[in-house]
Amino acid sequence: MTSSPPCSVSAERGCSAGELAAWFDGDLSGDPERRGYGLAPVSRAGGRDIVFVANERHLAALSDSGAGIVLMGQGMTRPEGADLSHRSYVQVANPHACFARLSTWLGSRRRFSAAIEAGAVIHPDAAVHPTARVCAGAWVGAGSRVGPDVYIGPGVFIGERVEIGPMGYLYPGCRILDEVRLGSEVIVYPGAVIGGDGFGFAQDQGEWIKVEQLGTVIVGDRVEIGANSTVDRGALDDTVIGDGVKIDNLVHIAHNVTIGAHTAIAGCVGIAGSAHIGSHCAIGGGAGILGHLEIADHVTILAMTLVTRSIREPGRYASGVPHQGAREWHRSLAALRRLGRREG
Amino acid sequence: MTSSPPCSVSAERGCSAGELAAWFDGDLSGDPERRGYGLAPVSRAGGRDIVFVANERHLAALSDSGAGIVLMGQGMTRPEGADLSHRSYVQVANPHACFARLSTWLGSRRRFSAAIEAGAVIHPDAAVHPTARVCAGAWVGAGSRVGPDVYIGPGVFIGERVEIGPMGYLYPGCRILDEVRLGSEVIVYPGAVIGGDGFGFAQDQGEWIKVEQLGTVIVGDRVEIGANSTVDRGALDDTVIGDGVKIDNLVHIAHNVTIGAHTAIAGCVGIAGSAHIGSHCAIGGGAGILGHLEIADHVTILAMTLVTRSIREPGRYASGVPHQGAREWHRSLAALRRLGRREG
Amino acid sequence: MTSSPPCSVSAERGCSAGELAAWFDGDLSGDPERRGYGLAPVSRAGGRDIVFVANERHLAALSDSGAGIVLMGQGMTRPEGADLSHRSYVQVANPHACFARLSTWLGSRRRFSAAIEAGAVIHPDAAVHPTARVCAGAWVGAGSRVGPDVYIGPGVFIGERVEIGPMGYLYPGCRILDEVRLGSEVIVYPGAVIGGDGFGFAQDQGEWIKVEQLGTVIVGDRVEIGANSTVDRGALDDTVIGDGVKIDNLVHIAHNVTIGAHTAIAGCVGIAGSAHIGSHCAIGGGAGILGHLEIADHVTILAMTLVTRSIREPGRYASGVPHQGAREWHRSLAALRRLGRREG
Repeated sequence: MTSSPPCSVSAERGCSAGELAAWFDGDLSGDPERRGYGLAPVSRAGGRDIVFVANERHLAALSDSGAGIVLMGQGMTRPEGADLSHRSYVQVANPHACFARLSTWLGSRRRFSAAIEAGAVIHPDAAVHPTARVCAGAWVGAGSRVGPDVYIGPGVFIGERVEIGPMGYLYPGCRILDEVRLGSEVIVYPGAVIGGDGFGFAQDQGEWIKVEQLGTVIVGDRVEIGANSTVDRGALDDTVIGDGVKIDNLVHIAHNVTIGAHTAIAGCVGIAGSAHIGSHCAIGGGAGILGHLEIADHVTILAMTLVTRSIREPGRYASGVPHQGAREWHRSLAALRRLGRREG
Repeated sequence: MTSSPPCSVSAERGCSAGELAAWFDGDLSGDPERRGYGLAPVSRAGGRDIVFVANERHLAALSDSGAGIVLMGQGMTRPEGADLSHRSYVQVANPHACFARLSTWLGSRRRFSAAIEAGAVIHPDAAVHPTARVCAGAWVGAGSRVGPDVYIGPGVFIGERVEIGPMGYLYPGCRILDEVRLGSEVIVYPGAVIGGDGFGFAQDQGEWIKVEQLGTVIVGDRVEIGANSTVDRGALDDTVIGDGVKIDNLVHIAHNVTIGAHTAIAGCVGIAGSAHIGSHCAIGGGAGILGHLEIADHVTILAMTLVTRSIREPGRYASGVPHQGAREWHRSLAALRRLGRREG
Repeated sequence: MTSSPPCSVSAERGCSAGELAAWFDGDLSGDPERRGYGLAPVSRAGGRDIVFVANERHLAALSDSGAGIVLMGQGMTRPEGADLSHRSYVQVANPHACFARLSTWLGSRRRFSAAIEAGAVIHPDAAVHPTARVCAGAWVGAGSRVGPDVYIGPGVFIGERVEIGPMGYLYPGCRILDEVRLGSEVIVYPGAVIGGDGFGFAQDQGEWIKVEQLGTVIVGDRVEIGANSTVDRGALDDTVIGDGVKIDNLVHIAHNVTIGAHTAIAGCVGIAGSAHIGSHCAIGGGAGILGHLEIADHVTILAMTLVTRSIREPGRYASGVPHQGAREWHRSLAALRRLGRREG
């Protein structure tokens, strides 16, 4: 699959069924000249819309849909009686991935033109590429470098000696603190904080003495960091987020954590200091991972699981407890306590 | 109960016992001319304060209180020997609700006058009602409409084609992204992000391909969204928050979630994509709700519960585990594991 | 141990082994004139670096380290064959605490000079000490007082009648709402919100009526509040954070909570309304504490524990469930349910 579209694809011109088949190396049925201009769910689609079906179970819903173009799997069977006079089908290896790529070309909101807006504060020792945009109320500190085609939204804070790689998109009000380095095509959502101090203190006669956090945060290419998530800087070494990592909203990543490439982390996860997470992992929402442990590649952690020791083998791990009726659950809890006392 | 106060009630003039009785259709004992100017807890109240007692158990504390006016339930018995020479009692159907309404008239901080402050950035194609206030450092994008009596605090970001209904109050530094629609009397607290991208990716040969999030967020009337909470925009359809929904701090609501009217969600809750929550539900702090499931109306979820499948019946549901001493708890856990192995 | 360094210590001049021994009342071996200029982990340290070893187990790693100066415990034995010709050792009572104090003098980023930057908005009735810095895009409301040596970063919001004690450091984009009082040397990280409304509503015929939150937040001395954490104002009384309390990122503290001195709270914790936490407690990441309960001093709550009732005795408490393989865990769960039904 090629990742760039035929040059004629755009939100205004839309995309023909034939162009889609060529772009995604798919098999076409129906009129190659039929054009789609937008993306829609099957249930709401009209004749100018493109939809996708990634699962046999959803094929039946097509019969009630007005969708003009359908992206579907190569192994799937087109619905019986599918009328090719008002719909074209493009069968591809991975319909969801094709839909994803199409979505960026037809529907991305992240478009802008280069400018330094009035009201932006840029230190004279910062270097902002002429193709970047820096909006009003943004701040770029001394020694920082902003790469080509970067968008820096209103109210974004960029500290000192920060590096923002090419094609980064920093949503309004995210904050990138001193020395943090972002790779290329990194998206940071509103309110995310990258490079705040790790939670490091020494005990001294019952009081906590702050340990300055001297490391920073290194973020790879094509990473996304969700709204109001926080990634702390390392204590002495750095916190490292690998290429292609996707982090949802309200996730906390503590100091000295490392996360391998292409790992996805759902909302409300907390990862404690110096945990090392492998590549291609999937971490479910609300999970907690204790510090100073290692998780292998290709590990899946289910929602609200507490990871308390290293995981050496790929696979699925869990400790979340599914809900019950409250009374039933309290009976189970009481039985568990009795069991603990009996066997203890 | 009428919801607007007698016209003479204000923070400066205060409110007499007789006015309270008339406003809330209550039964008065003691001097109708006694005035209250502020609200206080029973333990700290003085003669110029109004207090409320919603529970028989708290009546005894009145004997040590200097409160000048007491709002209490119609079914409650006034304390024996209550001296009406220095205190008036107003007995009403719902003392807590009366206290709530009174609090807004006597104590609201959300007062402002209309103005566009210097340093606000308003796109020429945005429409801001002349009765609104837009503070310094706020940003209003192209095509957005700000209704009457709306407050937009310092550092608030409003994207493009956003609609803010009448009497909205946007605290400093909240962020409302493109196309989001807020109903009337919506309060958004600092740092909340409405309309960030949902966490949507397609897998393609081990990498995550971003799926643009083409829906938006529709928020009903009289909704509150707490500090640093996040409500993501829908993938193709919209995320929908019903009328009167109250959302506490640090709550994450994923793409395509719908929440029925008058549901309350406590702090640190995470709701995964395409979950549909009913009306009049109460979701306890730290709960997690998985995606693509349905929760009926009038469901209560207790704190730190993990909801893993649809809930069709009203009632109380739980899976949170109450703390024990650590040693005792580890015994229970060990017993549980043995049980699982024995019976597995 | 004295807490101020010999006057000659600074990031530029560094610190000699002899000065360290004098400052921390330690025992010196090797050249007293050897100087350290930076702090490093043992594994990466070079001859100009100072390292610390707080644990016998880590002594062995020194043999491969190039560190010029080692801070280690008084009870520890220097590695055999330690060559004093290229390294000096300073043995102290508490090496981690010494390293912490040293880190502030050698490595703090929180340095600034006094100024009111262009683009700061300061109400004419606010009082800002001439030694404070107020950055562009910050806002200081009417009646607020900013003490000596305070840093107020870009985009910080300070409401009305707020007090910021001496040497406070308010990172970019934190928000301190009306009437909040911060003690001396308080650090607030980006995105934290102090003084948002508590989550207080009265039920009235199925709808939630807002109860105005009339209290505020009182924060003691040397408190840290992490990135995107939220501390709500009290309903009628105040929310109170004691001296020396350290709060990590994404923590939610509800209205009327009180937290005793020197308690540490890890990331993603939620504390419900009117909970009273003792002094010198440690609360693990992701824990939840229900409202209207009391926790004694010197209590440790392990990660992801749900505290459901008061804890009267110091000690360790838990209810977090360690992960298992998903299949194994589901067997344990099934056994637990059967047990609950059998015994119920």
